Amino acid sequence: MTDRVPILKIGEILLVSIQFDLEDQKVLDLQDDLSNRIVETGAKGVIIDISSLEIVDSFVGRMLTVNASLSRVLGAETIVVGMRPAVAITLVELGLSLNDVRTALNLERGLKLLRRLNAGRA
Amino acid sequence: MTDRVPILKIGEILLVSIQFDLEDQKVLDLQDDLSNRIVETGAKGVIIDISSLEIVDSFVGRMLTVNASLSRVLGAETIVVGMRPAVAITLVELGLSLNDVRTALNLERGLKLLRRLNAGRA
Repeated sequence: MTDRVPILKIGEILLVSIQFDLEDQKVLDLQDDLSNRIVETGAKGVIIDISSLEIVDSFVGRMLTVNASLSRVLGAETIVVGMRPAVAITLVELGLSLNDVRTALNLERGLKLLRRLNAGRA
Repeated sequence: MTDRVPILKIGEILLVSIQFDLEDQKVLDLQDDLSNRIVETGAKGVIIDISSLEIVDSFVGRMLTVNASLSRVLGAETIVVGMRPAVAITLVELGLSLNDVRTALNLERGLKLLRRLNAGRA
C-alpha cells in the first residue's frame, strides 16, 4: 500500500475519497498531491467524499477549509460530499461552520453543482 | 471511521476505490455491500480503482474475479482501473490473468468503456 490518498480524475474534476483517519503527515501529503494534480491537469473542481468519516473534528474541519482555499487559488472549486447527519450535527454544535467549503449531499449532486458553478464562470 | 469500503455512485455506475489492504472480513463485507448497492440502485456498471495497491496477490486477484462474476449475475459489468505497471507484471508472471475481469488504464477510460458496453447492450 502507498500512504497517499489516491486522487481520481473524471473529466475536469478531481475526486478524493477519504477512507481513513488522516494524521498530520497525510494531510500535508494530500494538500501537496492535490495542488500538484490541479496544476498538472487544469482541473476546475475538486470533490472530497467524507462518507467514511464518523467524526470530523476541528483538525479535519481545518484541513477541508485549507484544501478548499488552496484549490480556489489554483482555479478549482471544492465540494465536500457524503457528510453523515451525525457529523453535521457535531460540526454545528462545535461551531465549526466550514466557511468557504461548499457541500453537497452526495457525489452525484456534487458533480452537478460543480458543472453549474463552472458553467456560470465560463 | 467505519470499516467498510465506501461505494460512490455516479449515474448508473458504482465506484469503489480500494485504499487499504483488504483482509478476509473486509472482502466479504465489500462483496455484500456491493451486491446490495447494485440491487438497490439498479447500477449497470462497477468500477474498482486499485491505484493505491502496490501488491495484488492471488487473494486480491480472486476477490476481483469473484466481485466481477457476482456483479455480472446482478446485471452490472465490472472494470478494474488504475493498475500499476509493477502490479501488472507480477500478475502476468504469477499466471494470474484476471480472466473475466475487464481492465482500463484509469477511471475516465473505465467510464467510457462502461458507457460503450452498456450502449451495446441496451
